[in-house]
Amino acid sequence: MLECAGNGRSGFYPATSGNQWSNGAVSCAAWTGVRLRDVLPRVGIKDDAVYIGYYGKDTHLSGDTAKPPISRGVPMRKALEDETLLAWVMNGQDIPVLHGHPLRLVIGGWPASVSGKWIDRIAIRNKIHDGPKMEGNHYRVPEFAIEPGSQVPENQMRIIESMPVKSVITYPKTGAVTLQHILELRGQAWAGDLQVSAMHTSIDYGATWQACDLQPPPNRLAWQRWTTQVRFPQKGYYEVWARATDSQAVMQPMVIPAWNPGGYLNNACHRIAVKIA
Amino acid sequence: MLECAGNGRSGFYPATSGNQWSNGAVSCAAWTGVRLRDVLPRVGIKDDAVYIGYYGKDTHLSGDTAKPPISRGVPMRKALEDETLLAWVMNGQDIPVLHGHPLRLVIGGWPASVSGKWIDRIAIRNKIHDGPKMEGNHYRVPEFAIEPGSQVPENQMRIIESMPVKSVITYPKTGAVTLQHILELRGQAWAGDLQVSAMHTSIDYGATWQACDLQPPPNRLAWQRWTTQVRFPQKGYYEVWARATDSQAVMQPMVIPAWNPGGYLNNACHRIAVKIA
Repeated sequence: MLECAGNGRSGFYPATSGNQWSNGAVSCAAWTGVRLRDVLPRVGIKDDAVYIGYYGKDTHLSGDTAKPPISRGVPMRKALEDETLLAWVMNGQDIPVLHGHPLRLVIGGWPASVSGKWIDRIAIRNKIHDGPKMEGNHYRVPEFAIEPGSQVPENQMRIIESMPVKSVITYPKTGAVTLQHILELRGQAWAGDLQVSAMHTSIDYGATWQACDLQPPPNRLAWQRWTTQVRFPQKGYYEVWARATDSQAVMQPMVIPAWNPGGYLNNACHRIAVKIA
Repeated sequence: MLECAGNGRSGFYPATSGNQWSNGAVSCAAWTGVRLRDVLPRVGIKDDAVYIGYYGKDTHLSGDTAKPPISRGVPMRKALEDETLLAWVMNGQDIPVLHGHPLRLVIGGWPASVSGKWIDRIAIRNKIHDGPKMEGNHYRVPEFAIEPGSQVPENQMRIIESMPVKSVITYPKTGAVTLQHILELRGQAWAGDLQVSAMHTSIDYGATWQACDLQPPPNRLAWQRWTTQVRFPQKGYYEVWARATDSQAVMQPMVIPAWNPGGYLNNACHRIAVKIA
């Protein structure tokens, strides 16, 4: 299942604050655990339940143990999905400490910050969870598009839920130089709660696009491997662009999409430079 | 018939020298004159004819009257096309001096610099014409794509012929503010020697595209008017992108295409910013 953390923030102008994620902050692992939907009913879910909120064993930077550094959550419908897990195994082994040992939430397709680590407690809330990093510009975007660099009132921000369609080229790396006029490319693509329905590449800055081979996800909410063979008509400098399309026919944009104060949801196409010598 | 002069040079990085054309340098007028194909045979076209080259009455900036400031041309196949004219009337009136009075060449779909003004003489050449502005980086691009900022040898440059597909939004202007959630847009599109087969707009940075109404050209090589109604789902700041597709299914790119030393052939999509209040 997919974790996606802030991927792409560094692309925005004006610059947005926070870790300047570029293309790296994404991963997909196999998780083993128990479904949250099998745990929560044993504790009891009241009729007015609308949200969960997690609390972890990590300590606030201030050292104040009463102050959670982060406590986020999701609506009950997402919390009770088949794929939402309380996990203790990652890729067949105990979860490493950095990844949340001994117990973490795994909630695929949404910002990775809802997949809480070092889980200590889960609250069932009768309102939208209001822990640290649920409010302000944290994991929230304006309800409507705004001019780059401007702000909107708190009450006109919405919480990011499913992540938008995106993809990466994992091979070759940008800067590759080759004598071959045919290159085998590969990568991964994902689309939040949706599936990726098509994957294309372009070597002419988007003037034309060629379809790639795209595999189904191993599980719902996992990413999808894609491969393709790109034929370069002659020697020269090329930029290879990759573009995923989701199951609702929404494509990755080639340019940075709507600016927002937190620098979220940049799902612009990934591209690499290749030189055919 | 369409004139297209350097349109888009200012978009390239590293910057390329010459007049920093942005989106303005394009026009389409009705021309009256005589077909070059009805004139040249009266003078005689030898079997070894491959190119024409024009000479005008304008004077070189140095003041040297023996030195033509510009003398360009096209292959015989383009010179003898039905639409290639020696014209004396523009939009029903004598051609204004700035547009080439009393006689100019009109060669549609190619760089406007082949449509020589103040025509004095036309040479039929048995080699590719070699007048001023036919060589070096003038109206030429590398035979293969190069890294931005790099150079290629003279003998690896090719003369630009048909211009690539392109379009502009002529209404509204960028910066428009309106209370309306539905906007009527209009513009023009063209594709060099080809036709424009489709026109689309996007208000989500290219994630989805809607088809526009597109008229056929009044004549071959004229531009094509397009209109569309764009519906904005809510208030906010939008960028409206316009994208033409030519009759060979090649689209305008959303980003600046292949860099070249002269800054030619930037046919990236035109976009405007609109605020729905």
